[in-house]
Amino acid sequence: MKDYIGIDVGGTTIKCGIFTGTGDLKNKWEIPTRTSDHGSHIVSDIAQTLQDKYENMQEQAAGIGLGVAGPIDSKGYLENSVNLNWKNCYPAKQLEELVGIPVAAGNDANVAALGEQWRGAGEGTRNMMFITLGTGVGSGVIIDGKIVNGFSGLAGEIGHISVNPEETLDCNCGNRGCLDQMASATGIVRNARRFLEKSDIPSALRNLDLTSKHVGDAALAGDEIALKTLEYCFGFLAKTMASVSHIIDPEVYVIGGGVAKMGDLLVDITEKQFHSYFHLQHRYPAIRTAKLGNDAGMYGAARLAQLMVEKC
Amino acid sequence: MKDYIGIDVGGTTIKCGIFTGTGDLKNKWEIPTRTSDHGSHIVSDIAQTLQDKYENMQEQAAGIGLGVAGPIDSKGYLENSVNLNWKNCYPAKQLEELVGIPVAAGNDANVAALGEQWRGAGEGTRNMMFITLGTGVGSGVIIDGKIVNGFSGLAGEIGHISVNPEETLDCNCGNRGCLDQMASATGIVRNARRFLEKSDIPSALRNLDLTSKHVGDAALAGDEIALKTLEYCFGFLAKTMASVSHIIDPEVYVIGGGVAKMGDLLVDITEKQFHSYFHLQHRYPAIRTAKLGNDAGMYGAARLAQLMVEKC
Repeated sequence: MKDYIGIDVGGTTIKCGIFTGTGDLKNKWEIPTRTSDHGSHIVSDIAQTLQDKYENMQEQAAGIGLGVAGPIDSKGYLENSVNLNWKNCYPAKQLEELVGIPVAAGNDANVAALGEQWRGAGEGTRNMMFITLGTGVGSGVIIDGKIVNGFSGLAGEIGHISVNPEETLDCNCGNRGCLDQMASATGIVRNARRFLEKSDIPSALRNLDLTSKHVGDAALAGDEIALKTLEYCFGFLAKTMASVSHIIDPEVYVIGGGVAKMGDLLVDITEKQFHSYFHLQHRYPAIRTAKLGNDAGMYGAARLAQLMVEKC
Repeated sequence: MKDYIGIDVGGTTIKCGIFTGTGDLKNKWEIPTRTSDHGSHIVSDIAQTLQDKYENMQEQAAGIGLGVAGPIDSKGYLENSVNLNWKNCYPAKQLEELVGIPVAAGNDANVAALGEQWRGAGEGTRNMMFITLGTGVGSGVIIDGKIVNGFSGLAGEIGHISVNPEETLDCNCGNRGCLDQMASATGIVRNARRFLEKSDIPSALRNLDLTSKHVGDAALAGDEIALKTLEYCFGFLAKTMASVSHIIDPEVYVIGGGVAKMGDLLVDITEKQFHSYFHLQHRYPAIRTAKLGNDAGMYGAARLAQLMVEKC
C-alpha cells in the first residue's frame, strides 16, 4: 500500500504529513513558508522536503494533496492568495511537474472539513459541515464524502450570510449583519462590549482587554453578561445552521477554530437554539467540536489526494 | 441503446415517459392513480401499463425511475405519502419484483429538479437548485449532477427556513416567518391583502377573490400595491437564495410551479434583490424559470434510473 501525502500550506509554516490509505498518520513535520519573491520558493521547498524523506517517492507514494489559503477552482487555478503571496498560478500542476506523482489542491477550509470527515469528529458520516469560528467564520461542506466547491468556489462562505437585520455596522464584505460579525472571536468581543455598555450589572469582563476566551471563561463561571453574549452570538450561528439543515441536511456539524475551545458550552448553547429553529422533525443532526486541531488540513489534503487517485 | 422509463406518480394521475439515454422523449401517456385500498393497485397498474407498451421490457428498457410525493430514504423506504395513501413501503422494490428490471425511486420535488438539470432550464450545469413556488415552496438540490437527499431526506426543504422575523402568524410547521408564508402562491395572496388593508391607494386587486395570478397581472400593468407585494415576497425568496449561494454556490436557480408563470417579472424582481444580498463577487448565478412544466418529474425519474444503472 502506497502512502498519501497531505500538505497544509499556511502563511507561516508548511505542515507535512505522511498517511496510510486508511488515514493513519505515519510521520509529520513542518518547514517555514518562504513568501519572498512572490512565494516562488514555496513549491520547490515542498518538493525538496518530500524528496528528503523518500528514497523513491514515485514508488512509495500514490499522491499528494495541498490545502491552500485561497479559492481554487475546478481546474486547479488560484487567482490570489494574500497569505502566500501567490497570484494567477496552478500550484498542484507546478508541484506535480517537480515530483512526478499526482497532486491535487483545494481551499484550506474545505480541505480541513475533509480531514475532519475522514478521521476527525465527522468520521463515519458522508454528509457534514465543518464550521471554523476564528478571526472570521469559515466553513466547508462535504456531501457524499466529497468537498462541495460550488460554481465560483464560494461554497461554505457562510460567514457572509446576513443574519442580523438589527446590526448597524457594515461588514467588510459590503453586506451588513453577517454571521461573521456575530459568531467570530471578533464578533463575540464586540457584542460583549455592547452588552457591557448597555448595562450596569457587575461583570468579570469589565476593564479587560477583552478576548473571546475571557467571555467563555466568564460564562462558565456564571457571569450574566458573558452568558447573554454567547446566547446572542451563538443564536445567530444556530439560526444559520438551521438554514443549512433545510438546504442540505447534514448529519453532523463539526465546529473548530479558536472559539471551539469553549467546548460543551458552545455546543450546548448552539444545540438548544438550533432546536428552536428546526421544526420539521425530531431527528436532529449532531453538533460536535473538531478533533484534529491544526492537523485537520494535513489530513484532509491527504484524503483529497486519495480521492483523486482512486477516481483515476 | 435501451430505453429509460420515467414515472411521475401523482395523487390524481401517473405520468409515464419513455426516453433515450440522452433524454429525448420517445413516448408519453397517463393513467389514473387508483388510491383506493391503501394505494395497493398503484404499483401493479404501473407494471401493467408498461408491459402493454413493450413486447419484451427486459430487453428493451434498462431501468425505471419513480418520482413519488413523499420523502424516500437512501434505502428506498417511504414512511408516508398522504397523496398516494401509501404507508411504510418500498415502492421501487415492489415494482422491480413485478417487471424484472432495476427501479429507483425519489421524492417528487428532487426528481423534478433532476429533470430540469438533465433536459430543462438547468441543462449543461452540474450544480443547480430547483425551486417550486406553488401552494407551498419546495426545492431540490443537485450537486455534481446528483440529487442531494440529506441525512433525513430534508435537503431542499427551503420553504421552512424562517426568513421574516416580523411575521406574526405561525406557519403550519410550527416555526414562524417561513419562506413558505412569503413566496408561495398562498403567501403572495395573504401579503397582497395586508398591503391592501394598510393603504387607500386605488388598486386593481381590490374586491377580487384574489389569486397570485391576479397579483402578477396587476403588477405587469403597473399596479402599485401588486408591485409592492411582489417586491416584498420575492425579496424573501432572494434573501434565501443568497443564503443558499453562500452555502453551496449553485450555478443556476431554476424556478417552477404556478407562480413561475409570472416569468420575467419574477426573475427581474428576484435577481435585483439577490444582487443586493450577495456581495462576495460579481459572478452571479443565473436565475431562470423552468422549461419542462409538468413533465419535469417524468424526465427526472428517467434520469434517476439512468444514474442508478450506470453506477451498477
